[in-house]
Amino acid sequence: MPEHTGYTGKSLEFLKSNDVAVGDSVKAIGELTYSGIIMPRYEHTDDQHIVLKLNSGYNIGLEIEKITKIEKLTSTEKISENVDDLKENPSLPKILLLSTGGTIASKVDYRTGAVTPILTASELNSSVPELSEIANIDTEVLFSEYSENIMPDHWLQIARKLNDVAKSDYTGIIIAHGTDTMHYTSSFLSFALAGYPIPIALVGSQRSSDRASSDAALNLIGATKFLVGCKTNGVFVVMHNDESDNTIACHYGTRVRKNHTSKRSAFQTIGDNPAYIIYEDKIQKNTKDEFFKNKKFNPKINLDTKVALVKYYPGYDSKLLDEILDMGYKAIIFEGTGLGHIGKTMYDSVKRANEKGVFLGMTSQCIDGRTRMTVYESGRDLLNLGIIPLEDMIPEVALVKTMWALGNSQDIEEAKKIILENIASELSK
Amino acid sequence: MPEHTGYTGKSLEFLKSNDVAVGDSVKAIGELTYSGIIMPRYEHTDDQHIVLKLNSGYNIGLEIEKITKIEKLTSTEKISENVDDLKENPSLPKILLLSTGGTIASKVDYRTGAVTPILTASELNSSVPELSEIANIDTEVLFSEYSENIMPDHWLQIARKLNDVAKSDYTGIIIAHGTDTMHYTSSFLSFALAGYPIPIALVGSQRSSDRASSDAALNLIGATKFLVGCKTNGVFVVMHNDESDNTIACHYGTRVRKNHTSKRSAFQTIGDNPAYIIYEDKIQKNTKDEFFKNKKFNPKINLDTKVALVKYYPGYDSKLLDEILDMGYKAIIFEGTGLGHIGKTMYDSVKRANEKGVFLGMTSQCIDGRTRMTVYESGRDLLNLGIIPLEDMIPEVALVKTMWALGNSQDIEEAKKIILENIASELSK
Repeated sequence: MPEHTGYTGKSLEFLKSNDVAVGDSVKAIGELTYSGIIMPRYEHTDDQHIVLKLNSGYNIGLEIEKITKIEKLTSTEKISENVDDLKENPSLPKILLLSTGGTIASKVDYRTGAVTPILTASELNSSVPELSEIANIDTEVLFSEYSENIMPDHWLQIARKLNDVAKSDYTGIIIAHGTDTMHYTSSFLSFALAGYPIPIALVGSQRSSDRASSDAALNLIGATKFLVGCKTNGVFVVMHNDESDNTIACHYGTRVRKNHTSKRSAFQTIGDNPAYIIYEDKIQKNTKDEFFKNKKFNPKINLDTKVALVKYYPGYDSKLLDEILDMGYKAIIFEGTGLGHIGKTMYDSVKRANEKGVFLGMTSQCIDGRTRMTVYESGRDLLNLGIIPLEDMIPEVALVKTMWALGNSQDIEEAKKIILENIASELSK
Repeated sequence: MPEHTGYTGKSLEFLKSNDVAVGDSVKAIGELTYSGIIMPRYEHTDDQHIVLKLNSGYNIGLEIEKITKIEKLTSTEKISENVDDLKENPSLPKILLLSTGGTIASKVDYRTGAVTPILTASELNSSVPELSEIANIDTEVLFSEYSENIMPDHWLQIARKLNDVAKSDYTGIIIAHGTDTMHYTSSFLSFALAGYPIPIALVGSQRSSDRASSDAALNLIGATKFLVGCKTNGVFVVMHNDESDNTIACHYGTRVRKNHTSKRSAFQTIGDNPAYIIYEDKIQKNTKDEFFKNKKFNPKINLDTKVALVKYYPGYDSKLLDEILDMGYKAIIFEGTGLGHIGKTMYDSVKRANEKGVFLGMTSQCIDGRTRMTVYESGRDLLNLGIIPLEDMIPEVALVKTMWALGNSQDIEEAKKIILENIASELSK
């Protein structure tokens, strides 16, 4: 039965009257002629357009009024038979792709319209055929979650899998991951797998595959080129560098943040350029430092989630902090204002937290720049109350690092020492 | 008695042996010769330098080993007699400067080393003499707080004062304010004083006056030029545009954020250029829109602080949200991930909040970009649970607007309507 997922009104009428459906390969003739596959639509949208996936991999929206004729080239069923069995090229390096979910790791099932995970290497290679010219890619689905549903337990699961393959013959590892919390996961892996011998690239896509110009393929290709050619190790987030398709950025996994809700270049290295840029087949290095501060591989795959991130704002009621303390939290990461401040109204609760032996770390909601608590009287007050400035650690990274440090130490004093040590470039010079 | 605030070790020895002290006007001769006033020091710092305030207004740190000779020109007492009585120039427009504290509104008392508020017009004009050529400036100290200590009650106090002078003959109003929470205050004033007839400029400084290249004077001059020449109304944050001293940026008070802890150009308009740029005596306009969406002045100076900003992160325990609900909060502004998501583990608590009639608004911790909750299944789930996407409102602005809306409405339904209405450019197109 022909499927028309997401099409309504005029566009649905148009598909039906031309006897074409989602998944059909068609030629649409108008002022210009386009050949491609009719894509399902998921967004609340108008009924004036149909979306084609072109052979180039791009999606395009076509106004139905401007289509003079539409011809069916192949129907859905034929396409699904076209997946080739992939032959390995023994001269190419081996890459492992671990899939955790999100837009990047999904393909649209043209018959049902459902977004499903990429399951096999042959499926991956048929959707991004360029990959097979760069590397032999093994794939494995770890789980399939949108990244807003990825929890610290998932971080542990990914880290354990990576630990298992640390001594394999892979040249590098791709982790396909939803973008929403990718920088939290990359931070955890950076700490838990300090010194990991081969490079790890977390890759996502900002545009779902039924939208025009999805970035999934280009980000995967960029990451693969990077892993094969970078000659370094570390944990990287690999995404579009700008709104063009010319450059792919490789960010340090502990210095990066999703700073835009929808742009393909949403990820930015805070306070610096991305560590590497991939431009065509060139890898441009922008950093002199090694990602891991200690070369020895030293996996510590534990964590303790009794850490709260507290963003301060005018009117923040210190009773909220009291409740957190009463719930047995072991550490508070403040997202203070400016150089690392919170208001005087917080002092009593902070004092109580300190007396309870709770770790109190300060970051800034400015995101960029360094905390400095010696400049103003209020900062000095907070230092005296036991709050520890966390240099220029990004708040989210400080949160993850503290969870990790608590899970891998005997007591708060040991955790504190670990938190302040530069492990994976989370502290810039 | 000579004062040496902040000087220790060698630098203290140097001052004493040369019989000069903080506040003295001196000539320091070395490879180059500098004349200026010896400044107190507040930061934990080395003992190798002394700091001079030059006649240009800049501060400079001089290495004592390189000073071959230092001559006292005038001592402290003489300087303090030099404050002229200011004469008004009747041909110039009138500006009111309200001081609330922070670095900008302070001057260093050279005798005690204490940072004290600027109290009188004559003191202001003697520290920034250029101002008296642009406008006649009346000054008033409302209170004196570092901005991390400014609370919603202070916002009300500022708004009431502004309301009192809405029908005066001032051309514009400067609010000297600490930078840490300046964008929260500017947001509140934008809503509470919607349609205010004359322009309001919040001005801060990022570098304290005992540090090299304080930006206080240039920001004040830029703001005064802007208020006198802009021919518009609205609430603006006026600060350095970049690290040079060439351009001053005027940001819309509801679209701006402190995005760097220490840079002079810390404030940025989110997702756009600043609304106006002051370059020398020119005012460049970058916007076609009016700041206030309704021209009528319609003051509503109330608020309700029972609003919590909840930043979601992997591992966020929904019990924290439950506690907030149990404390009687009337509204939650989520700082979700990406397009506006929170994890499935939050759904039960969100459902409960919705059933209690709590307003649930969604913003994004990406800061830049628009929330869109119809793209992914998880977003649609959250919409069904009663969460309302707040377009591209900056999280901090959404928080302040919700406090204000709750304080000026009879019930949650009325508040909701107000929150979604574009009042002061807080929603961009």
